[in-house]
Amino acid sequence: MHPLVAGVLARELRATARACRLVDDAVPGHRELLKGLFPHTGRAWIVGVTGNPGAGKSTLTDRLVAHLRKQGRRVAVVAIDPTSPYSGGAILGDRIRMQRHFADPDVFIRSLATRGALGGLSRSARDVVRVFDAWGADVVLIETVGVGQDELEVTRAAHSTLVVMAPGMGDDVQASKAGILECADVFAVNKADREGADATVRDLEVMIALGGETVSAGAHSRSHAAGALDVAGASVRHAKGVWVPPIQRCVATKDEGTAELLAHLERHRAWLEGTEAGRARRAERAHEELRATLRDALVEEAVARLGSAIDEAARAVSERAIDPYSACEALVARFRAG
Amino acid sequence: MHPLVAGVLARELRATARACRLVDDAVPGHRELLKGLFPHTGRAWIVGVTGNPGAGKSTLTDRLVAHLRKQGRRVAVVAIDPTSPYSGGAILGDRIRMQRHFADPDVFIRSLATRGALGGLSRSARDVVRVFDAWGADVVLIETVGVGQDELEVTRAAHSTLVVMAPGMGDDVQASKAGILECADVFAVNKADREGADATVRDLEVMIALGGETVSAGAHSRSHAAGALDVAGASVRHAKGVWVPPIQRCVATKDEGTAELLAHLERHRAWLEGTEAGRARRAERAHEELRATLRDALVEEAVARLGSAIDEAARAVSERAIDPYSACEALVARFRAG
Repeated sequence: MHPLVAGVLARELRATARACRLVDDAVPGHRELLKGLFPHTGRAWIVGVTGNPGAGKSTLTDRLVAHLRKQGRRVAVVAIDPTSPYSGGAILGDRIRMQRHFADPDVFIRSLATRGALGGLSRSARDVVRVFDAWGADVVLIETVGVGQDELEVTRAAHSTLVVMAPGMGDDVQASKAGILECADVFAVNKADREGADATVRDLEVMIALGGETVSAGAHSRSHAAGALDVAGASVRHAKGVWVPPIQRCVATKDEGTAELLAHLERHRAWLEGTEAGRARRAERAHEELRATLRDALVEEAVARLGSAIDEAARAVSERAIDPYSACEALVARFRAG
Repeated sequence: MHPLVAGVLARELRATARACRLVDDAVPGHRELLKGLFPHTGRAWIVGVTGNPGAGKSTLTDRLVAHLRKQGRRVAVVAIDPTSPYSGGAILGDRIRMQRHFADPDVFIRSLATRGALGGLSRSARDVVRVFDAWGADVVLIETVGVGQDELEVTRAAHSTLVVMAPGMGDDVQASKAGILECADVFAVNKADREGADATVRDLEVMIALGGETVSAGAHSRSHAAGALDVAGASVRHAKGVWVPPIQRCVATKDEGTAELLAHLERHRAWLEGTEAGRARRAERAHEELRATLRDALVEEAVARLGSAIDEAARAVSERAIDPYSACEALVARFRAG
């Protein structure tokens, strides 16, 4: 049994922080730690908070933490810092996050600064979430910085994902919506007291009406025609037991609409646990997670066993003595043979 | 020999387009195609164009294509569409790109819509670049949409990477600079006729002066003090043969500064080919590429061989009969045993 397991289960601050660091860095032995924690996990509700930079995710997350704390629930926040794949330096590491919760022993805040060494951000987030689950978190919030493919992957570790939008973020932001729609369980239109909030809500309604069909930048211009489609599409899916993401307007800085947002998320959780479609989705995510873990395990084992053969192959390829595909087939065969 | 190889080498439009699609989708047999093309590659100069949405990358790419064509060089453009990891739908697929080059048989433009199935965007970009290299491109431009970790990975397939910035894109944009700095070989400050261009140039100068040390959002506020540091740091590195990225102001819509930009990129190419440091960097990238290819080959082979054992393991994990780490160790052992 890994020595940190007992410390995490006893909710010791330093042991838990060390456990987070070990799994984030994927240092040798981190899997033994995770194995030891696993029997004590499965209780936490994992909520992803994603959306474009500037949408107000941190403020909203802070409000959600406050509401959850008022309900007496233990909360952990995993803040994803997109890290340079080159230096491994965390970008927001020195930003002080959600200061007012720092003194609360039932709130644990951890920024990830993954080096992408082993499976990248999503692997790291998944494993740190497990630490917090064992630590006794009732709710783990995963807050991403942007909405890149990586960050959408991260939200797959969540049971329920909140996508935060803000009015007037322009066409380039529109273009990223297709990916967002498909990971969104609940939408927040934050800064709803600003101009353009109605248009943002309407755009989202259209996207939801189109229901996961390819929503390109062009959807924006189609929005005028889609009023009728909207209602029909959503209610048909509702009737089939499919989850249709609700849209909540809020002003996080004033704590307006945030309690309602949490209520929407709770309904999503109930849907996941209480319906066949929800259970199917949980099973699907578990399956994906296993595949990702398998991929990391394969790579780690192959690198350990093949060692310098990989360097030799790289040299041969750069001298154009062999193509990289044949070189890798030979390495795979060698890995399997011995 | 894969039947499409001859068509690509003969520069047939349809065969080349099909070859791109096959490798982008990683359909069975795509590796045989790549093996056949490999002996005919290694000639193209691969240039990455990245930067935040709204910085004007597409317009700038278009200008670079025009300059390259004037020099009589054959050009391919790989436009990266960030794709939902869920639906696989391309977001910008229906945007018409760089229309004026469409009729030119010596310009090939291809949008990637990778499903992320096998190694994701960077794998797909790398392989499509190989198709264009064999097709006879003198220059392949890879244009990304944003600057997420994924997109920075994509630029690793490039020999030379151009990072496009624009004035006044706010603090959230600042936060992503750390990753950008480390992949940048040349900086373009586009829209240089707009207010704030001087500040953007100054910020970049500071970042370059800090020379790849952790550049956090805080670097922005340090910029006033860093004037002296700037010059000293950069010249010391120059003296050591290290490449220090130049900054070029331009206005892509008016074609101002774009010829100079291309000249900077050419100097970077000469540095890569003519110096020890440049050659070391090429070797390092080749090594990374091999590791990425190996990872994909391992996963593909394991999925093919393990088949339903992966499903069974996922079920056991979701029933909490075993932890995912032990389950994956058993799968790896089984893969190696037979």
